[in-house]
Amino acid sequence: MHFGLFPESTYTARRRQLCSLVPDALILLMGNEETGMNYRDNVYPFRQDSTFLYYFGIDIPGLAALIDTGSGEAIIFGTELSMDDIVWTGPLPAIREMAAMVGVNKTEDFSRLAGYLREKQKSVLFLPPYRDINRIRLAEWLGIPLHEVQSRVSAPLIKAVVSQRAVKDVLETAAIEEAVSISTDMHLAAMRHARPGMKEFEVAGKMMEVAYGAGGRLSYNIICSKDGQILHNHYQGNTLQKGDLLLIDAGAEQSMHYAGDLTRTFPVGARFSELQRSLYNIVLRSIETASAMLAPGVRYIDVHAKAAEVLLAGLKEMGVVNGDPAEAVRENVHTLFFQCGLGHMMGLDVHDMEDLGEPFVGYTETLKKRTDFGWKSLRLGRALEEGFVLTVEPGLYFIPELIDRWKAENKLASFVNYNELEKLRHFGGIRIENNFLVTDAGFRLLGKPLVMTAAGVEAQLSLG
Amino acid sequence: MHFGLFPESTYTARRRQLCSLVPDALILLMGNEETGMNYRDNVYPFRQDSTFLYYFGIDIPGLAALIDTGSGEAIIFGTELSMDDIVWTGPLPAIREMAAMVGVNKTEDFSRLAGYLREKQKSVLFLPPYRDINRIRLAEWLGIPLHEVQSRVSAPLIKAVVSQRAVKDVLETAAIEEAVSISTDMHLAAMRHARPGMKEFEVAGKMMEVAYGAGGRLSYNIICSKDGQILHNHYQGNTLQKGDLLLIDAGAEQSMHYAGDLTRTFPVGARFSELQRSLYNIVLRSIETASAMLAPGVRYIDVHAKAAEVLLAGLKEMGVVNGDPAEAVRENVHTLFFQCGLGHMMGLDVHDMEDLGEPFVGYTETLKKRTDFGWKSLRLGRALEEGFVLTVEPGLYFIPELIDRWKAENKLASFVNYNELEKLRHFGGIRIENNFLVTDAGFRLLGKPLVMTAAGVEAQLSLG
Repeated sequence: MHFGLFPESTYTARRRQLCSLVPDALILLMGNEETGMNYRDNVYPFRQDSTFLYYFGIDIPGLAALIDTGSGEAIIFGTELSMDDIVWTGPLPAIREMAAMVGVNKTEDFSRLAGYLREKQKSVLFLPPYRDINRIRLAEWLGIPLHEVQSRVSAPLIKAVVSQRAVKDVLETAAIEEAVSISTDMHLAAMRHARPGMKEFEVAGKMMEVAYGAGGRLSYNIICSKDGQILHNHYQGNTLQKGDLLLIDAGAEQSMHYAGDLTRTFPVGARFSELQRSLYNIVLRSIETASAMLAPGVRYIDVHAKAAEVLLAGLKEMGVVNGDPAEAVRENVHTLFFQCGLGHMMGLDVHDMEDLGEPFVGYTETLKKRTDFGWKSLRLGRALEEGFVLTVEPGLYFIPELIDRWKAENKLASFVNYNELEKLRHFGGIRIENNFLVTDAGFRLLGKPLVMTAAGVEAQLSLG
Repeated sequence: MHFGLFPESTYTARRRQLCSLVPDALILLMGNEETGMNYRDNVYPFRQDSTFLYYFGIDIPGLAALIDTGSGEAIIFGTELSMDDIVWTGPLPAIREMAAMVGVNKTEDFSRLAGYLREKQKSVLFLPPYRDINRIRLAEWLGIPLHEVQSRVSAPLIKAVVSQRAVKDVLETAAIEEAVSISTDMHLAAMRHARPGMKEFEVAGKMMEVAYGAGGRLSYNIICSKDGQILHNHYQGNTLQKGDLLLIDAGAEQSMHYAGDLTRTFPVGARFSELQRSLYNIVLRSIETASAMLAPGVRYIDVHAKAAEVLLAGLKEMGVVNGDPAEAVRENVHTLFFQCGLGHMMGLDVHDMEDLGEPFVGYTETLKKRTDFGWKSLRLGRALEEGFVLTVEPGLYFIPELIDRWKAENKLASFVNYNELEKLRHFGGIRIENNFLVTDAGFRLLGKPLVMTAAGVEAQLSLG
């Protein structure tokens, strides 16, 4: 077998629960296909759809499944290997053998799926497609215009899937811990490897060795940049100078595709400068304060606000902002320095279930996602529940273009000391990120702990 | 600038030549988009379309271009960054600045492209799309049913593009050499790193460090397997035992996306056994013989046949096959051991221009690709020309399922000594692969030479 599976009963129980949540419907779950990179057959590493993995576990392309929630019957559709396939890709178990391992006793040739859907007696429910091929197939199979597919997705199905996937069981938590521990090793390798004169991509390459060498892969493209203020920065061509603050946001996906997601920021080949240490310790206090709040019933939007308040309190001590930090957060002052959200759900996806829609995953009927700058980037706001796995990742980002815009508008000038801020214009960015499980008692840090204090980080660095 | 470019004159000259090859038409060249992995925004590493790179060089998503081959005018369509984009992804030059660097003076917003096509006065020529999003766009923009897009591609345009891209200039050759040299370093690292007890993916991880650490990436997914007989085997979960023959087919893409593609096969933590050495030396003689034949005017299908003949001559010495090797090749005996092609064009794609169609890239009007087993997998058959870059990669593969099928049919029994072959049933596979430029004088090995003789390979191995 070329991929790992949980016990058969795990998948059977998940599907049984789904049937009870969405009674008397036909649920169509699409697996992913290979995707051509620069031509059809030079494919990106195959990534199965996460919801398909959750209910069916089988990690190969070319599959889809139907669940009749009335009868509870599931059918997996796929294509058996030909002799030519065996010559080129080696023998694999038959689809029906793989299906049996996840408790599915009925399989059909993939070509028969369209016919099943034409003869359907019930409404067919499906999830939002993020791959074009699945959008095309849904349109063709269900007779929907291509541009209408997205609007025909099933909200009840989304809600049911989210309610299940949001709460991680013991097996899933263990898988996530494995991914986080590999991620920890990636960051330790980076700290020990990074030296002045290196290119950023050399540090990233070392982390890839660790991720792949542990039988995993990356759960997302590595951010490894001395321009830490650029939030989604995948450029890695800068040469590192002694004392540059290097922000690394990197995580592994373990073999069953559960994700880890850690961030650390450290000075290259040097101890933290006084200014770096001051700002670093502000972010450190923010993550410590925020993490300590995690518990069932606590709204994550409130944790976010508290983390932002701690950031502003620190900046106030440095003379960069004025006024009461809590009031300043209500006025959105923090969004000049902390433009993104404090964290997100994590599981089979690093932003877990993001394509099912953040209104369903991170918010509720009564707590809607805000639309204003900063807050609109908070993916998770709702009250936490036992079994949720999430990231906590406060940061301080000094973005010259944003500072210029606010300053030109004299925006929130009673709170922002723009003259002091000018000194930090080219500082860059700092982020610290850990992964947590929400427990009955509060929370548990997942994975091998990664050094986090300035002194702890410095002890790992190559200071040669 | 976040990506490398050739001098402006390179792109201008390429487009001017294209205009002369396809007179008085409107050519639509599609760039690639970001592609979601497990959700829309968790993207695979961006890979620009190779033909777009060839004529326009700009390595960012969200672009397309029109070339009016009558007037020679080119327009690049793209979307300028918003302030929000700058906050999240950092500043980039404007589209018009990037366009100017490749000699294009006219740019338009991407949304205006559909309008341009509606008002067209000339027929619009396009290449085969391999990304679904581009297939959808072509269908919508040109009013073609989705399933008809593939049949409406322009053969004259394909032929023109192939005629240009097939012949590499000095700048391209240098880029390919860089990619091959990184690939050489990947293989050396693997040889020095591999030890009994390791998983195959640990060796692959080490190679990824080298590729990414050199500012490159992989030109295709690494094959790193003790089951070398499985031709496209991406499973890397086996534990390596002392003396296992490890086949590694791995190559880097350098920063401008030119590819390298090398294969070596070596025993893990040991010298070659007598049997391994005998079979290895057969493949070695095959690549040496084949490489020495490379020259303008030589048909690659004849090089393939000669390489196969050398393989059979070696197997004859071992008593596995009988008869005259050249005659045996004509009877397709070699396809039991060498099921694939001897090599392929290489350039911006590792199988260069594969999606433009092998009939156009590797064959001609008079030399058509064969359709029988073995030969149908030879991607390149035509007479070589100065400036072609290609791989030479003979191998011996003992595939139990294929041996069983032939034996059951008593196929070519006068040539195959099935009793002797049975002893090699679980031997696995050996491949040796190098990359060459066809020159006026014959050929030139590209990149830093990688050890190839059994003794040379052994000298690199960790035999501890």
